[in-house]
Amino acid sequence: MDDRKALITLDGESSAEDDPIILQKEAGPTSKAVQDFGLHQREEPSTSALARRATLSGNNHLLDDSQPLLMGNNSVPPDIPINGSAGSPNRNINSSEPIFHLRSRTAAASTPNYESLDYEVCENTLFQDEQRKRLTERFSLRKDIIRWIIFIQIGIITALIACTIDIIIEELSIRKYTFLYNSVKENVPLSDASDRDLLIPYLYWLLFSIVPVAFGAAMVTYIEPITAGSGIPQVKSYLNGVKIPRIVRIKTLAVKAIGVITSVVGGLAGGKEGPMIHAGAVVAAGISQGKSTTFLKDFRIFKAFRDDHEKRDFVLGGGAAGVSAAFGAPIGGMLFSLEEAASFWNQNLIWRTLVASIISVFTLNIVLSAYHGLNDFTFTGLFNLGKFDTPLKFDYFELPIFMILGVTGGLLGAAWNSLNTKINKFRKRFIPWKIGKVLEAVVVAMMGVTLACLMIYFINDCRPLGNDPTNNPVQLFCEDNEYNAVAALWFQTPEATVRSLFHDPPGSHKILTLALFTVVYYVLSCATFGLNVSLGVFIPTALVGAAWGRLLAMLTYYVFPQAEFLHPGKYALIGAAANLGGVLRMTISLSVILMETTGVETSFFFPLIIALISAKWVGDYFNEGIYDTQIQVNHVPMLTWEPLPQYKGLKAREILSKPVICIKIRDSANYIYEMLKKCDHNGFPVVDDVCGDRRSEGRVCGIILRSQLIVILLKSLYVENKRFWLPETSIQTFRDLYPRFPSIKSVRKLDEKINYTVDLSMFMNPSPIRVNPHDSVPRIFQIFRALGLRHLLVINHENRIAGIITRRDFIYK
Amino acid sequence: MDDRKALITLDGESSAEDDPIILQKEAGPTSKAVQDFGLHQREEPSTSALARRATLSGNNHLLDDSQPLLMGNNSVPPDIPINGSAGSPNRNINSSEPIFHLRSRTAAASTPNYESLDYEVCENTLFQDEQRKRLTERFSLRKDIIRWIIFIQIGIITALIACTIDIIIEELSIRKYTFLYNSVKENVPLSDASDRDLLIPYLYWLLFSIVPVAFGAAMVTYIEPITAGSGIPQVKSYLNGVKIPRIVRIKTLAVKAIGVITSVVGGLAGGKEGPMIHAGAVVAAGISQGKSTTFLKDFRIFKAFRDDHEKRDFVLGGGAAGVSAAFGAPIGGMLFSLEEAASFWNQNLIWRTLVASIISVFTLNIVLSAYHGLNDFTFTGLFNLGKFDTPLKFDYFELPIFMILGVTGGLLGAAWNSLNTKINKFRKRFIPWKIGKVLEAVVVAMMGVTLACLMIYFINDCRPLGNDPTNNPVQLFCEDNEYNAVAALWFQTPEATVRSLFHDPPGSHKILTLALFTVVYYVLSCATFGLNVSLGVFIPTALVGAAWGRLLAMLTYYVFPQAEFLHPGKYALIGAAANLGGVLRMTISLSVILMETTGVETSFFFPLIIALISAKWVGDYFNEGIYDTQIQVNHVPMLTWEPLPQYKGLKAREILSKPVICIKIRDSANYIYEMLKKCDHNGFPVVDDVCGDRRSEGRVCGIILRSQLIVILLKSLYVENKRFWLPETSIQTFRDLYPRFPSIKSVRKLDEKINYTVDLSMFMNPSPIRVNPHDSVPRIFQIFRALGLRHLLVINHENRIAGIITRRDFIYK
Repeated sequence: MDDRKALITLDGESSAEDDPIILQKEAGPTSKAVQDFGLHQREEPSTSALARRATLSGNNHLLDDSQPLLMGNNSVPPDIPINGSAGSPNRNINSSEPIFHLRSRTAAASTPNYESLDYEVCENTLFQDEQRKRLTERFSLRKDIIRWIIFIQIGIITALIACTIDIIIEELSIRKYTFLYNSVKENVPLSDASDRDLLIPYLYWLLFSIVPVAFGAAMVTYIEPITAGSGIPQVKSYLNGVKIPRIVRIKTLAVKAIGVITSVVGGLAGGKEGPMIHAGAVVAAGISQGKSTTFLKDFRIFKAFRDDHEKRDFVLGGGAAGVSAAFGAPIGGMLFSLEEAASFWNQNLIWRTLVASIISVFTLNIVLSAYHGLNDFTFTGLFNLGKFDTPLKFDYFELPIFMILGVTGGLLGAAWNSLNTKINKFRKRFIPWKIGKVLEAVVVAMMGVTLACLMIYFINDCRPLGNDPTNNPVQLFCEDNEYNAVAALWFQTPEATVRSLFHDPPGSHKILTLALFTVVYYVLSCATFGLNVSLGVFIPTALVGAAWGRLLAMLTYYVFPQAEFLHPGKYALIGAAANLGGVLRMTISLSVILMETTGVETSFFFPLIIALISAKWVGDYFNEGIYDTQIQVNHVPMLTWEPLPQYKGLKAREILSKPVICIKIRDSANYIYEMLKKCDHNGFPVVDDVCGDRRSEGRVCGIILRSQLIVILLKSLYVENKRFWLPETSIQTFRDLYPRFPSIKSVRKLDEKINYTVDLSMFMNPSPIRVNPHDSVPRIFQIFRALGLRHLLVINHENRIAGIITRRDFIYK
Repeated sequence: MDDRKALITLDGESSAEDDPIILQKEAGPTSKAVQDFGLHQREEPSTSALARRATLSGNNHLLDDSQPLLMGNNSVPPDIPINGSAGSPNRNINSSEPIFHLRSRTAAASTPNYESLDYEVCENTLFQDEQRKRLTERFSLRKDIIRWIIFIQIGIITALIACTIDIIIEELSIRKYTFLYNSVKENVPLSDASDRDLLIPYLYWLLFSIVPVAFGAAMVTYIEPITAGSGIPQVKSYLNGVKIPRIVRIKTLAVKAIGVITSVVGGLAGGKEGPMIHAGAVVAAGISQGKSTTFLKDFRIFKAFRDDHEKRDFVLGGGAAGVSAAFGAPIGGMLFSLEEAASFWNQNLIWRTLVASIISVFTLNIVLSAYHGLNDFTFTGLFNLGKFDTPLKFDYFELPIFMILGVTGGLLGAAWNSLNTKINKFRKRFIPWKIGKVLEAVVVAMMGVTLACLMIYFINDCRPLGNDPTNNPVQLFCEDNEYNAVAALWFQTPEATVRSLFHDPPGSHKILTLALFTVVYYVLSCATFGLNVSLGVFIPTALVGAAWGRLLAMLTYYVFPQAEFLHPGKYALIGAAANLGGVLRMTISLSVILMETTGVETSFFFPLIIALISAKWVGDYFNEGIYDTQIQVNHVPMLTWEPLPQYKGLKAREILSKPVICIKIRDSANYIYEMLKKCDHNGFPVVDDVCGDRRSEGRVCGIILRSQLIVILLKSLYVENKRFWLPETSIQTFRDLYPRFPSIKSVRKLDEKINYTVDLSMFMNPSPIRVNPHDSVPRIFQIFRALGLRHLLVINHENRIAGIITRRDFIYK
């Protein structure tokens, strides 16, 4: 099902209006619309005249569409409940079925069909009735308070989930690396270089990587494939208005949580930050709706928030709470949501988002303080990436250096994005099988372990014990009172390694160690992102950046030993910022997050932002940020902030889809039923002033959604039995089925109701946004984007439909 | 001139359509629309028939409106250039003038008429022609680069202006207070309490207050009254789309700069921060337009940016640069712009705003470092409010205390706002004369000096010298080796006093000193804000908060001497935050600004935001923030983020203005000329398919602005002389006159062109946004707000005009 609505010719409409430009465009090589030319349907004058007469005399339950081609004669007269008896006395015309003409102008056949969300509130009569009942100040205040409560709940629960993930990862990692440490100790007893036997620890290490990674990858692949990756592109798409199936289910959350734990513990080059954002989004969607589809449980609360618009706002808050919990950075989390995730902003929303973030960080702090046994009740903040003890200072002449680091980050980031995209394309093409995807994750995990072992084996980087910053100082091949600096880099989670690179004292590593580590991790992280595991890209990116930042400082210090300003930790931080900027292309939120996670002073914001901006500008020259790239690769119809430059000079008439299937404001139930069965459009203009069956020549008076029509049919909301349903039907009748409206298949054959009539005036959205065919595309894009529309009706001078524009029509390349 | 367009009956239109609800509402007590019932104009059938015929035969230069009441017969036949000769052979009908029916539903007679800005881009044929020429990638890139350059320039120049103001204030203040210090020293030679003679220093002090304040107040009052106050409400209104006359002129900037210098040096209870935002806005508007009206100079650059939409974005960047320069806080500045000033956001804009802020802070740092003689090239950041040397820590059990402080701040802030509003109302009513306004400022300045002197005189608060934090430790009535703590508070600028309160060691003041200081400054600042001087409210508010915050800590410590966590500086900071939150009702930006100006750690964000949020919530219960209050008091038609709750349940037809003056797509020059002279509407629907002179029954095909019509008349862009002007007319013809389009009075009588015709199809905006009369007001509000519209056409089912809605119609109370 998708939003293209003009794929099918149902009405007996001539497309003589077809603009020559469109025809030309469609006839071009990229077009698949050649069938389109067959769409001029001949109209039997006598039939339509009859139908017109029938309509005028009130008998408007007739099928007005022609040609009995696709389906059998399943429209039966109202008083004969048995199927199949064609030509009953009530039917004045042969109800002929329409031909189907698919006109797939915008979507390639292979791309998945994403639906849009209904951010536009349908202000139909039922909605207005509800509004009128709730006009009181009290109700409005109550709804506001409940909204706040939900946001606070989102903050708390997101933080609790983040804590759980955090603690489990930490516990398991400590156990894993302690075991490996002991195993190394036992198997490499001597510092004698002749007896270099790492085989047994290597095998253990492999085992501890393969088992969790395989488990996680299998869960993701077989149970819920949507949980692969960081989840940020998906959440971003969702917030833009694209319906990503199963993105905010509790099942997704469970798989994602287990997936991220197994992958991080397994030692893949990834972080838990992206998944936490996704987790926050799920929590938000779950809580705000007061029901769970996974558990088939409806708590019957928060019913007023059951629509896409409200849900979107909660999901934004959940995402922010997730980032905040992941980094312990409330402002950073809020800004991240704004900068990267949100497509729609508004002051109150930002407010609530901030509160959710703060509550989330606070909860996280309390729980983690308790876990770590800090009972002095002093709030320290969470410095996930470790606090810089001495304030970082910098001189003016360092600013160009920061800029150079930024440019380097931009180049490396752009290269990473492009390489990663290529790897993922290769993956998509050559590894279609599920088992292959699991195996691939295992192979990458093995590759990581092997490379690490080789580095440890071949590089002799021994440092004196004492100021060792690692928990497990492996003596491995070193003298007594020394530890192996290479092993120290690898024998911990990536997050801990970032911390080491930021805070290890100068001279903790050899140049060769860091250089090799950078290269290995760069390649590893590139191969990892895109695997069928739940992992974020933030931490590995920061790690690579920190490694080369520190490396550059060391190299420069090696060349100019008098340059005392070259504090390696500082340059590691700038390097991490630059690399993050190059890959993710964010600036404000990244700088704030880095500040909040390392506790540097606000004056250090300046170098961070210089590096980030340089990285972003350089990177943007080559390609887009990794999240946007992923969205593009997946053909998600995401609307950008600004209209695409390609659309300059185009008119609405050149991108609209037509002909449009319209419904009369009082139309026959059978027509609607048949039409829904045959086409998969989601929005139908409602017209009146219709001459017989020439629906598409009526005047537009509203729009109705497929989901609403299905509810109408399901609940038999017909004119003829109005007295039965009218008193108890309200907007809640429709909201109850949200968000998973049944498909038309779940509607039984109409049978005895086949001649019934539906009066849409109560259900349709009477205020669709309408534009002219001669309006420019950038302009209508802005309208579409700013109002979060799903369908935009293009009408002519006389308020008759000329076409319809949806999200997909703006994505056309 | 204002945007209400339906004030006048020009067309011979029957208002039989009038909804009964409207009639009922208008007949209510709050309505002034009783005249409205006189608007059913009788239509002389013969006349209109003639006119119709005349139109059909191409003679459509006729006035079709009736009744020669308000004006004389100044429409003359085309071939007779002399006025006053009615009944010429060319005129088939008696051109009778329209009656004017004012229907002032929304605006009280006394409120100033604010116009709206045209944020909506008018995509007429000329615009499209330009777009087509500039379709190339290169042009678009070039425009982007120029935009970046402008933003960078804005940052630099704003910072330079801020520096200049800063340095002048500092130099003058040092001189003033050193002089007073010496004068005190000379005149109060002994610490002997018997000889307490402060008269001479008091008189000096008065002199040094009165002279600058009087000068500043006179400049503001006589030269540019718009510069009074902080400027933030004005900038905020401007960014919301309200045209505030003279708000962004260079003259305004000059007066504002001098005004703020004189007021701060004069010792008024105000800060320089608000005015700096305004200064940034002026700089942005000036640079981006490449011309200055004050100097009548057009640099002929940046012509592509000469429209309200582009200018708005630059002004936002300028405002952010101004805040950043005022506080040395780049993120804070950007967030301030977003949270408080901006009404329209978008990702790219935020980006550019951030860059402008950073450039601004950087420039400021370099200049001020040079000024202060710091030549070690170490970037320290500007901690305007002083850096906390030891990191501020807090315990969990302090959080409720912070919350209590927040609640206190909210209460005090709400009381302050309400008191200030009352004072200002009083002021407006009883001090209408200019000289009175200047005198009032002088009186307040004198009051401040007097109260300070009394405090110094009567309170004996001596502290030992040594760790004295003030520059001028006045011995005054104290023993040798002691200084007077009261004098220390008063003998400096308010900003320096905030710094003292944050950083003075514990025990620097008596409880009585601080208590009295708080009360005095609370009252003083309340009396000051609203004076006719250029002053911001940020610093005095922070100062009051810091004083009572410190006071509360001292009191508590006095009661519980074992409570060691009661660091007075910390509580002063929280108190400042709480008070700011209570008065300004911002949260995110305030917390970031306080962090950036005091260099506290990011973990201290948490207490700050707790205090701010509590303050905001409590304050919001009572009234609005001070800026919003000011906007309301001035009756600025500001559109809120969300539709007002009062509008729930209303329909478009209940708020629209009608009847509407329409123009035919080909209309007579004379009709347009006469109409523009007689009404002051700014937007006119363009209709075609018109039957004779019944313009308002035509079908809507566009909208045209008053300014465009005036340009058309001024440049004689008629159909008849098309060959002369067509080749050289472009969108630039219209843009050249931006932003001060001439009034209709500058158009000479049409004389020989009276029978000429104007073809609007090339000039009108062919894509006006249209809604239905039955659309709900919250919905159309969202459309209006999101798209930044100026006119919203309400059309009926057949695309004929039913009314028009502008900003003012949404402000109705």
